[in-house]
Amino acid sequence: MPTRDDIIDITVDGDTIAGTLVTPATLVPGVLFVHGWGGSQEQYLARAREIAALGCVCLTFDLRGHVGTRLQHETVSRDLNLNDVLAAYDVLASHRNVDPAAIAVVGSSYGGYLSAILTEMRPVKWLALRVPALYMDSGWKVPKRQLHKGEDLKDYRKSLVPAASNRALRACVAFKGDVLVVESECDTIVPAAVIASYVEAFIQPRSLTYRVIEGADHGLTDAGFQRAYTALLVNWMKEMVTGEREGNTPPQGSTGLGSALPEAPPPAK
Amino acid sequence: MPTRDDIIDITVDGDTIAGTLVTPATLVPGVLFVHGWGGSQEQYLARAREIAALGCVCLTFDLRGHVGTRLQHETVSRDLNLNDVLAAYDVLASHRNVDPAAIAVVGSSYGGYLSAILTEMRPVKWLALRVPALYMDSGWKVPKRQLHKGEDLKDYRKSLVPAASNRALRACVAFKGDVLVVESECDTIVPAAVIASYVEAFIQPRSLTYRVIEGADHGLTDAGFQRAYTALLVNWMKEMVTGEREGNTPPQGSTGLGSALPEAPPPAK
Repeated sequence: MPTRDDIIDITVDGDTIAGTLVTPATLVPGVLFVHGWGGSQEQYLARAREIAALGCVCLTFDLRGHVGTRLQHETVSRDLNLNDVLAAYDVLASHRNVDPAAIAVVGSSYGGYLSAILTEMRPVKWLALRVPALYMDSGWKVPKRQLHKGEDLKDYRKSLVPAASNRALRACVAFKGDVLVVESECDTIVPAAVIASYVEAFIQPRSLTYRVIEGADHGLTDAGFQRAYTALLVNWMKEMVTGEREGNTPPQGSTGLGSALPEAPPPAK
Repeated sequence: MPTRDDIIDITVDGDTIAGTLVTPATLVPGVLFVHGWGGSQEQYLARAREIAALGCVCLTFDLRGHVGTRLQHETVSRDLNLNDVLAAYDVLASHRNVDPAAIAVVGSSYGGYLSAILTEMRPVKWLALRVPALYMDSGWKVPKRQLHKGEDLKDYRKSLVPAASNRALRACVAFKGDVLVVESECDTIVPAAVIASYVEAFIQPRSLTYRVIEGADHGLTDAGFQRAYTALLVNWMKEMVTGEREGNTPPQGSTGLGSALPEAPPPAK
């Protein structure tokens, strides 16, 4: 097991003596959580603790325009929020106990969209997208809130979007890690066509796990839906991390209720 | 597995967003190394790294009167050096990954003497003493260097010392943890009678391991003696830590070449 030395000062009787802390330098996976628009890191803390208990270092954070920087809610753009995700990623990947080659990113809705784009800019091994949102590439630097004006966005999300035409989907096309996509059956904000566009875009993942939470709405307002998602996510992370530790390659695709291979995306509902 | 949250600030575009790092809070044993008079933490760094690699947090440090505080060499007392050991112990025991109920202390010569006394002031589970020195209780606050004036100390070390008459030995009488005592066969500074006094004083250890490094001098000037001691120490720590982790009680006493139970101390040579 590798170790690392840290030089420290020890105070005694107002004097200082030199010390060296020698600690095991075990590297573990890092997991980054990206909340959705209108959400906060708070929503992910319980899940982060469950996943940290598997032996991972987890990081949750508040995107600009939320909580402490709520004053920027009307002005913050995708461009700036992507910088937030990059900054948080870099903090996590440079953590002393994190293996920078074993980073998972978990995003919901707008956070899932940003997470998909992140994979074209930073190494991501595992990507978990819950109800990932989708936006047209244009207006990248305009306030995110303005993207919802008019009916354009709603129409955009009603049919399958060709991957080549969209930045987030192009990132999915290029992504070669393990993927979890979670849909809410009764989602009126990110309809099934969007999820299908994402699943279709993953043409070369190491594995793909697609699940639908039955009866759930976009925001998982019911505590039962929240629990269902947590169970899905923790089980998936457990499989990924355990496979990693044992030096196994996670299985290609996945089987079971609600799963689909990228070649056979679910029909848009 | 327990986890812990650390609130952090993430800097992005000159702005600050709030983050929470959630990490596994696994507690591991802590190991404190106390060097001898005229020595330094440097002598213990390689051993600290080997033992950290077993999954422990190790701390080495320089006693006052040495290296950076060399100017106090002629004036520092046992009283002050014991404060050094206490301060270093407290840093180690309060380390975020250290189980304060699983602390090992490893001391050589003067450092072994101080380590024995430490056990009456702080919880110590495992105590490893290599050629532990012995001093009369009187003159506790006089400069340590003055204790060597005249022939009194040399005479004191030539015969068995009754445990009740000496602070370090009284601490050994009360000590209930696991003990390793390592003697140098050709030690002219801490003769065999001193080692016998220590071994005799441990009347209720959880286990006792006594070893002699054949042909070795007090300071282990030969690299082969150094390697022999390192191997002894690492093997003993491995047994202690592994036993601990598996929830086993380490065996009472120990067997094998050069071992002795406290009831049968080695004859003074």
